[in-house]
Amino acid sequence: MRSLIVVAALLSAAAPALAQTPEALVQQIVKSAPFAALEPFIRGDQDRFVRDLIDLTEIPAPPFKEQARAVAFQKLLAREGLADVEMDGEGNVMGLHPGVVGSASPRPILVISAHLDTVFPEGTDVRVKREGTVLRAPGVGDDTRGLALLLALARTLKHGAFQTQHDVLFVGNVGEEGEGDLRGIKFLLHKGKYKDRIRQMLVIDGNESNGITNGGVGSKRYRVTFTGPGGHSYSAFGLVNPAFAMAGTIARFSRIKVPAAPKTTYSIGVVRGGTSVNSIPFEVHMDVDMRSESCAELEKVDAQFLALVAEAVAEENAARSTKEGPIKADPKVIGERPCGETPKESPIVRAAAAAITAFDLTPTYHFSSTDANVPMSRGIPAITIGRGGPGGRTHSLDEWTDVQPAANIVNIQRALALLLAADKLP
Amino acid sequence: MRSLIVVAALLSAAAPALAQTPEALVQQIVKSAPFAALEPFIRGDQDRFVRDLIDLTEIPAPPFKEQARAVAFQKLLAREGLADVEMDGEGNVMGLHPGVVGSASPRPILVISAHLDTVFPEGTDVRVKREGTVLRAPGVGDDTRGLALLLALARTLKHGAFQTQHDVLFVGNVGEEGEGDLRGIKFLLHKGKYKDRIRQMLVIDGNESNGITNGGVGSKRYRVTFTGPGGHSYSAFGLVNPAFAMAGTIARFSRIKVPAAPKTTYSIGVVRGGTSVNSIPFEVHMDVDMRSESCAELEKVDAQFLALVAEAVAEENAARSTKEGPIKADPKVIGERPCGETPKESPIVRAAAAAITAFDLTPTYHFSSTDANVPMSRGIPAITIGRGGPGGRTHSLDEWTDVQPAANIVNIQRALALLLAADKLP
Repeated sequence: MRSLIVVAALLSAAAPALAQTPEALVQQIVKSAPFAALEPFIRGDQDRFVRDLIDLTEIPAPPFKEQARAVAFQKLLAREGLADVEMDGEGNVMGLHPGVVGSASPRPILVISAHLDTVFPEGTDVRVKREGTVLRAPGVGDDTRGLALLLALARTLKHGAFQTQHDVLFVGNVGEEGEGDLRGIKFLLHKGKYKDRIRQMLVIDGNESNGITNGGVGSKRYRVTFTGPGGHSYSAFGLVNPAFAMAGTIARFSRIKVPAAPKTTYSIGVVRGGTSVNSIPFEVHMDVDMRSESCAELEKVDAQFLALVAEAVAEENAARSTKEGPIKADPKVIGERPCGETPKESPIVRAAAAAITAFDLTPTYHFSSTDANVPMSRGIPAITIGRGGPGGRTHSLDEWTDVQPAANIVNIQRALALLLAADKLP
Repeated sequence: MRSLIVVAALLSAAAPALAQTPEALVQQIVKSAPFAALEPFIRGDQDRFVRDLIDLTEIPAPPFKEQARAVAFQKLLAREGLADVEMDGEGNVMGLHPGVVGSASPRPILVISAHLDTVFPEGTDVRVKREGTVLRAPGVGDDTRGLALLLALARTLKHGAFQTQHDVLFVGNVGEEGEGDLRGIKFLLHKGKYKDRIRQMLVIDGNESNGITNGGVGSKRYRVTFTGPGGHSYSAFGLVNPAFAMAGTIARFSRIKVPAAPKTTYSIGVVRGGTSVNSIPFEVHMDVDMRSESCAELEKVDAQFLALVAEAVAEENAARSTKEGPIKADPKVIGERPCGETPKESPIVRAAAAAITAFDLTPTYHFSSTDANVPMSRGIPAITIGRGGPGGRTHSLDEWTDVQPAANIVNIQRALALLLAADKLP
């Protein structure tokens, strides 16, 4: 009850707080008595945190097969007393911590999310091995610890009876890894019922407690299939060969120049095609990956690439006979992660930096590809912060995360401070 | 008995026959009374020919799995009364029709062969469907009909009590098709017990009754594996990429010039490698096929190719970082069919042409890749002639061959005339 009163007092200072810097706001929250009073609760909640983390880790969640874990996480969101707990059309699960009833309609939302999916295929042994405070299992860190952190934050918010200014939507989302292509968050922001109400977004992902991902590396991926008439390698010699057109594309692509900053990259990850050594292939394909910290550079390399495909195909069709049919190339987009940036000077990044500093770490700033790419690309202030750790061997069978209580408590406090500050940012 | 006398008379004319042209020799044989006298026997033997062909066709003989058929064929060679019937170390089966006892030691041999293997994998339905004189089944033509022809020739030789001047070795050999890489005939000529005695070779293969394959298209095949350190497509960007080195090779290779005559060809039939779109591959490979009617041109394109591999690898290692390791290329020979030619003017080719003309067809001359490549490459007079037909859809599940008696009888006569003439050629 006491904390409720003090928070109400904080809230009553909301209008003057508009003039406050994000740094001052974070300081005010962290130094407040109700915030400090939460420490024993968080400490006492550690076993629950670890139990949730183990339980969720041991429910496999391969890409596109997150449902069992999603259903379990949905129950936990309900257990924490969140409102409107549900699964959306893409498989994301979510629940609301309602803010004060304001006049704005629709009510703006602060989203806080972690992803349900892991990179591990079906059949992976996901049982957690415990060595002291170190938990080992595929996916135990990435991003299951993020899910456990969401639950701890919801519990702590409730325990402290914090009344936020805005609705806070807790989301366990699908499709962050690999070919998931951010489908969960894309759905949430493009099609979900809350799509027009999201004013800010905090994504929980990554092992670094002092890291702020405020840049979204954009990526564009293609599978380009080159087809031709095929034929016998000897008797049909002289006909166009799709492997030549593909090689012509790759050879040209390998010579393009990209800037070191903003970091821009390209790669051919997979090549495949042809049926036998003595046949001209009728089909070959390649998988192409392009990324950039800069939307403009990504667009540039993308346009260059598509032009090179056309050029190499034209060259092959001119170099050999097309009497049985020409080479054609079909570039199909197999991945597209929008790029974007939440500037370092923006209130949410400054608040995150202040929350990290408040707990004696030095913030570092990153460009990466996370669920935050989607809101960033739409101009919604968004960042990705760490799930707590230390941890490592992410995406390997030896993945581990350390739930050592002192560090974990601080991590929950830091995330809570940021959440409360973000809620009050203009 | 009568035929024996007449052939003995022919043989007694052997010394003057040395001065005979191959054409005159063939005419003499074909017009001889004992040869003409064989016609009713061959006609009466037709059912046996067809039965042998069906029986052998229905014994699967996939590449490298010819043994069941080889054992059956070995029994049939013994049934025809051939001597020294046996299977060699590679799986070829053979039997001798002994020639007259001469003074030469070791005794020179005329080989006549057909291949046991088909292109069809295990589990292919090889039951023969009969529609009038047309037999349909995978492999019924290529080259099972060649095997049935060998048996018919052995029977006819025996029935006519023909005494040949040289030993005639009847061979059902393994490994003609695809990756078999001519292993059966390579063994026969390089390692087999008769390897130093073979003076001439007639290969039975192909559907064309008037075709003479007197040129052996040589081929060289590689699987080139490009390896590198691999890495993440974004975080390890800048490291060498084996797909770039492979594409650089193929792009260069696609621009080399080869002569239209002697026909020389090259192809990339298979490309494969990489594990995911977001990884720089640590390994990619390609299968390369080069062929030529000319040994010199084949050597030239082969040398050019290997130089291009080295050039493209060096270019990639210079273009990007090798700090985690360089790109390496490993070209492994996966096929090598020696080239060779038995000149059109050589006695055996002239005799074959005369035998074709004698039965009212016009000979055509071909370069191809057959078992005869091996003896040709060693300077042994060798050609490939048709197994009889018509037939078609070779290497497909719809393969067929027509055993219409009139044409089949002529085909056996033509082959026999050539065999007898070859035996007497200088």
